[in-house]
Amino acid sequence: MNRLYHVPLSPFCRKVRLVLGEKRIEVELVEERYWERAPDFLRRNPAAKVPVLRMDGRTMAESHAICEYIEEVHPDPRLMPASAGERYEVRRLTGWFDDKFHSEVTSKLLYERVNKKVSGQGYPDSRNVKAGAQAIKYHLDYMGWLLDQRRWLAGDTMTLADFTAAAHLSSLDYISDVDWNRNANVKDWYAKIKSRPAFRSILADQVPGFPPPAHYANLDF
Amino acid sequence: MNRLYHVPLSPFCRKVRLVLGEKRIEVELVEERYWERAPDFLRRNPAAKVPVLRMDGRTMAESHAICEYIEEVHPDPRLMPASAGERYEVRRLTGWFDDKFHSEVTSKLLYERVNKKVSGQGYPDSRNVKAGAQAIKYHLDYMGWLLDQRRWLAGDTMTLADFTAAAHLSSLDYISDVDWNRNANVKDWYAKIKSRPAFRSILADQVPGFPPPAHYANLDF
Repeated sequence: MNRLYHVPLSPFCRKVRLVLGEKRIEVELVEERYWERAPDFLRRNPAAKVPVLRMDGRTMAESHAICEYIEEVHPDPRLMPASAGERYEVRRLTGWFDDKFHSEVTSKLLYERVNKKVSGQGYPDSRNVKAGAQAIKYHLDYMGWLLDQRRWLAGDTMTLADFTAAAHLSSLDYISDVDWNRNANVKDWYAKIKSRPAFRSILADQVPGFPPPAHYANLDF
Repeated sequence: MNRLYHVPLSPFCRKVRLVLGEKRIEVELVEERYWERAPDFLRRNPAAKVPVLRMDGRTMAESHAICEYIEEVHPDPRLMPASAGERYEVRRLTGWFDDKFHSEVTSKLLYERVNKKVSGQGYPDSRNVKAGAQAIKYHLDYMGWLLDQRRWLAGDTMTLADFTAAAHLSSLDYISDVDWNRNANVKDWYAKIKSRPAFRSILADQVPGFPPPAHYANLDF
């Protein structure tokens, strides 16, 4: 049986869960308090991060490397386009969300509001929260601009770039940090991806001490 | 003519330069003071980061996406292995250096000592420099452990993982922050990769106000 060591609100773990779900690959989810650096977990991943996926007799870390592996070994349905130019655009946007969006938004909102409390590191730094709340506006505008020209973020088919963006936004939506009224294109895009069967497990997540808002799991939000 | 907008000591730019060099793809280098956010540059890359590569009529950003594109369009010589499992390991290590090594070491040493001064952000924070100098030891040990079992970092052939690691280490070596005596495996590995023709342009870099140490360009260091 495949096994994913994860934490529910981690966008990197959610990306892997969404890719596995879309490809109908069964996986057992195991919550891992990675910040406690248990010796068993460090043996699985010396980087001491989640996600860690056990699959095909391998123990794998780094969400982008994991997703490319799953795509190569289980290509159906495809989440990477065929041409090098289109694949470049998927990887550029995957990098955009996992690097730039993560450092400017996810780490400033989710990590301040949730991770700090869960891991006993104290209270949110209000300067970070304010900076994240400001930065997400520009990112939503950028997504809206892309979606003005394309059906999905990286082109006319749904790809790993969409699941990467949706992983970050869904984690932020869990703590009510996404203004869905800012851009109609983005809201329509999220409604489409939120209704995928792969999304169900993510919409059922519950983090003790942080109940999700009513609209979080609602497909008509 | 291909054109790369870069800064000389950026490990992400160096990775792209090394990949282009190894594949003998000619490129014109243009230094870009990205922190000044010139409108022309923001039009080329809304993420306001280097490297940006103009090639095949495309303007591309995000170093990992660029390197995978170059590999797909110019596969000779190969910098990615053939099997999905080996490719996973290359991407895991590329992520390790560009994410973990970058945040724990490169940003704490190079950015404190050089980038802050060049972009007028003041003096190094000695706590960061101390943390980076401590962290690089563990990373060199981890590399040494990998190289005990493999000829190159990700397996028995030279790959993108080696150029990614070498890009970070060469930038740190420019400011004398790598202790080559810590691990003989790592020193042997770096001597091999440093002698590639692709490395020549990087060893000739000169940053005004930061002369490199004598050993930096020496193949017998």
